[in-house]
Amino acid sequence: MKAFVPGHITGFFAVKRDIDPFRAGSVGCGMTLGVGATTWLEPLLPGEESEVILNGQPSPAPVSRQVIDFLAPGPVRVQTDLQMVMGAGFGASGCGALGAAYLLNARFNLALTSNQVGAVAHQAEVANGTGLGDVIAQNTGGLVIRLHPGAPGTGVVDRIPIPPTRVYCLVRGPMSTSQVLSDPEVMREVNRAGERAVKELLARPTLEEFMRLSARFARESGLARDWMLDAMEAVEARGGQASMIMLGDSLFAVGEESEEALREFGPVVSTYVTKWGAYLD
Amino acid sequence: MKAFVPGHITGFFAVKRDIDPFRAGSVGCGMTLGVGATTWLEPLLPGEESEVILNGQPSPAPVSRQVIDFLAPGPVRVQTDLQMVMGAGFGASGCGALGAAYLLNARFNLALTSNQVGAVAHQAEVANGTGLGDVIAQNTGGLVIRLHPGAPGTGVVDRIPIPPTRVYCLVRGPMSTSQVLSDPEVMREVNRAGERAVKELLARPTLEEFMRLSARFARESGLARDWMLDAMEAVEARGGQASMIMLGDSLFAVGEESEEALREFGPVVSTYVTKWGAYLD
Repeated sequence: MKAFVPGHITGFFAVKRDIDPFRAGSVGCGMTLGVGATTWLEPLLPGEESEVILNGQPSPAPVSRQVIDFLAPGPVRVQTDLQMVMGAGFGASGCGALGAAYLLNARFNLALTSNQVGAVAHQAEVANGTGLGDVIAQNTGGLVIRLHPGAPGTGVVDRIPIPPTRVYCLVRGPMSTSQVLSDPEVMREVNRAGERAVKELLARPTLEEFMRLSARFARESGLARDWMLDAMEAVEARGGQASMIMLGDSLFAVGEESEEALREFGPVVSTYVTKWGAYLD
Repeated sequence: MKAFVPGHITGFFAVKRDIDPFRAGSVGCGMTLGVGATTWLEPLLPGEESEVILNGQPSPAPVSRQVIDFLAPGPVRVQTDLQMVMGAGFGASGCGALGAAYLLNARFNLALTSNQVGAVAHQAEVANGTGLGDVIAQNTGGLVIRLHPGAPGTGVVDRIPIPPTRVYCLVRGPMSTSQVLSDPEVMREVNRAGERAVKELLARPTLEEFMRLSARFARESGLARDWMLDAMEAVEARGGQASMIMLGDSLFAVGEESEEALREFGPVVSTYVTKWGAYLD
């Protein structure tokens, strides 16, 4: 048995702190992607300790490890193959943690619901400062609006209905989420711009509006780097829409014309918005 | 553009009446299936009236028509191809209504969210007495527990995580939902047995428990017919699990051994539990 969890990119967000990790999270909007992570369990020899193997290499993987500590009654070996770069805003830690939670639930007959499985992964993300809204979106699938913060079953989401949509991603490298989120001045701007974008999106929840508000958020929040602003303009000049992936040194774009414009700034990965969330296979 | 909406079969339920059609519905548990309905819009000539074409034939289709009246600013022709029998418990009316709602939302740029689209289809089902929980499950996808009644966005669901699961269905014919639901004595038994089954399922939400509680509900509620009880026993004797589809003269079963046992009672359709809900294609 394997678990597949889609990647998730956020276009805009506002952080909602709470002492309760199941209530902590974010509001905002993002999309789950066909690039994600496959996770499976492998047998351990007697006496071996739990370990997480990431793309074939033993890894500290603190988020997945916290899920193991929470759910596994004994040692397990969790293997995760990531189809994306870590730290670039694709929700890689959520992919691994949520996949591990689904597999441990099945393997040890824990009889948790999807929301309960997701809540375990969400609290591990919150505790490690690696994500505040990826898991609930990854557990849902699609173009997901996070209306109220929190873990699956506590947070509230809705979706924007869209036909099959290609997404073009350009990844230059990682960006430290915790570093950005720990600067109070940056956070004030982020939260102000993020709250405003959510409110406006709800007045007209469409893909075009999501992209427009994402681009405005990237500019207003001060998070977008110079190369991103240039690339966003180049895409817009061709009639496409692009914005920064929150939080990575990365861009995403939609629209047929976008791919070519984006290619001038670096190698582009072409993927799509999934209609499904995390699943067992 | 087309909309695909999975069929939905319920294993057990309790009816929750409410004067507000967005709050009315049911609690219970069921699964969305690979057999469903494809819906698309076709152009009308000037002066033509709205119509619904079901499997190639003009149809009164009151539920889909109510969705059209609610959403379409002008006349439209809605075509729906059903992959299942109507009235046999597969949520066919919900398939058509939800598919129509998604297409009208896209066609007329109504900018509704998935929950809002689903709420329009749900209230049309409630108003016509054709369904009380299919739409919210069809909008979610999977093995769906309906925890609180109501339309998408008002009702609350969770899911039971399962690996890919084949489902075998045997359909003898339709059963009148409104006739069953209008008998107060039957409804007392149904609601008592349904409430109890939901409570027990939440104590151990697994596929096996869902099937066990469905079979108990079919027997306790008095809804199962003699041939169904015989077929359920025959499947159980082979180590499978089967129960009645609520509400149809139909059975469903899981487990590899079930298909052969079920075939002795009539032709069997083999399908699967979807991991996705309604989507645009």
